[in-house]
Amino acid sequence: MAGPELAIAPMHRICKKAGAQIVSEAEAKELAKALEEIGIKIAKEALDYAMHAGRKTVKAEDIEIAAKKVLGR
Amino acid sequence: MAGPELAIAPMHRICKKAGAQIVSEAEAKELAKALEEIGIKIAKEALDYAMHAGRKTVKAEDIEIAAKKVLGR
Repeated sequence: MAGPELAIAPMHRICKKAGAQIVSEAEAKELAKALEEIGIKIAKEALDYAMHAGRKTVKAEDIEIAAKKVLGR
Repeated sequence: MAGPELAIAPMHRICKKAGAQIVSEAEAKELAKALEEIGIKIAKEALDYAMHAGRKTVKAEDIEIAAKKVLGR
């Protein structure tokens, strides 16, 4: 994984949405790291689906299925 | 879940990192949606860990453990 793609500010907001009152900088950074990793995993999975369907462009539904698969739902 | 927190540009970059040559707008938006949902899930889990440890501040390691749990690793 190269440099971080996700900004820190949205991570703070996501943690607040989850009910956190105090969000540490380390927490926000770690969440950005985790989400980027998961995002790449989902995108790879979605790309496989698209290619399997003979497409080069990934559609929203590929991401939807891939996200479910990665989360084990 | 309220409005989207994650910007679309980083989603494009994450998809490119995953090997996608063409990234549709719908794909980027769907990935943002999925990652926000997963992010809130991880942050909630992490908050539970922190509270269990008698802390109000979530630490990076709480996120790390929570991400592993949410991903079923």
